[in-house]
Amino acid sequence: EQHLPQGYNLRPLEKEDFSRGYLQTLETLTSVGDVDQEHFNDIVDYWKSQPKTYKNMVITDYESQVVAVGSLIVETKLIHSCAKVGHIEDIAVRPDQQGKKLGLYLIRQLIELAKEEGCYKAILDCDPKNEGFYVKCGMSRAGLEMEYRF
Amino acid sequence: EQHLPQGYNLRPLEKEDFSRGYLQTLETLTSVGDVDQEHFNDIVDYWKSQPKTYKNMVITDYESQVVAVGSLIVETKLIHSCAKVGHIEDIAVRPDQQGKKLGLYLIRQLIELAKEEGCYKAILDCDPKNEGFYVKCGMSRAGLEMEYRF
Ligand SMILES: CC(=O)N[C@@H]1[C@@H](O)[C@H](O)[C@@H](COP(=O)(O)O)O[C@@H]1O
Ligand SMILES: CC(=O)N[C@@H]1[C@@H](O)[C@H](O)[C@@H](COP(=O)(O)O)O[C@@H]1O
Repeated sequence: EQHLPQGYNLRPLEKEDFSRGYLQTLETLTSVGDVDQEHFNDIVDYWKSQPKTYKNMVITDYESQVVAVGSLIVETKLIHSCAKVGHIEDIAVRPDQQGKKLGLYLIRQLIELAKEEGCYKAILDCDPKNEGFYVKCGMSRAGLEMEYRF
Repeated sequence: EQHLPQGYNLRPLEKEDFSRGYLQTLETLTSVGDVDQEHFNDIVDYWKSQPKTYKNMVITDYESQVVAVGSLIVETKLIHSCAKVGHIEDIAVRPDQQGKKLGLYLIRQLIELAKEEGCYKAILDCDPKNEGFYVKCGMSRAGLEMEYRF
């Protein structure tokens, strides 16, 4: 059983996380670009309008700052008797928080959430250099990610 | 420029596709299980209630039978200035329709749809043995798919 450090919490994303470092944390994954509070609110509103699909989580520290972020996108399918798949997306941990196993905790909780939502599997795409980390989270290699960029 | 054979059409999924071989076509990808017309309608209704997220397409032949299926799931993100990603899912072509390049046409159209929806990329997960096919569709390898099965 995995635990968070004292004073740390995992909870759903809130609009107030804009001023608690949400985007700065996300920026450690990839380019976030120009997103002001208004854009941020629009996206959070959109996500909250589809609560069965979008589940966006944050880990905060003892000062309520966002130190890790991650999302679960629940996709409803016809295959496997109308089953669901959980897509784990946009995982980021603030670099100065390494060594606290926040990423491991977050992934395990997102997998647990996918299970609670009735998914038959949880999947994600990653750089081959991160395979070892995801294996530590209990996942295994399933296939290749192919892309077309515009 | 790619074309469909005479009398073939690409269009959005309809409930009537239940009796036109939708599930039999999908079955060539993976196990579909026990899905009756009522279950099918429920899922189609659910997809149609989220039209910005779920785009489910079929190719029909000159007898209006479903010969290929594929879906685009549009995910709204915060990264890249609130960009979208198109997830290409559940691609299947009826085995007796091989050689007509239906799969190639379908993938290209789903990529085009992702572009029209404003996605910055279209991605999919596949078995390594299908990499060559997706490269022919203009895609390239981006990463690994990791999974956790319940
Ligand atoms: C498990 C995880 O966090 N995977 C992320 C994915 O969710 C994210 O959307 C993408 C952005 O990369 P990009 O900026 O190169 O498109 O990177 C990784 O694949
Ligand atoms: C491009 C494409 O069609 N990829 C499919 C994916 O969409 C589908 O959901 C999965 C089902 O496999 P499963 O039955 O082993 O979970 O197979 C492939 O990865």
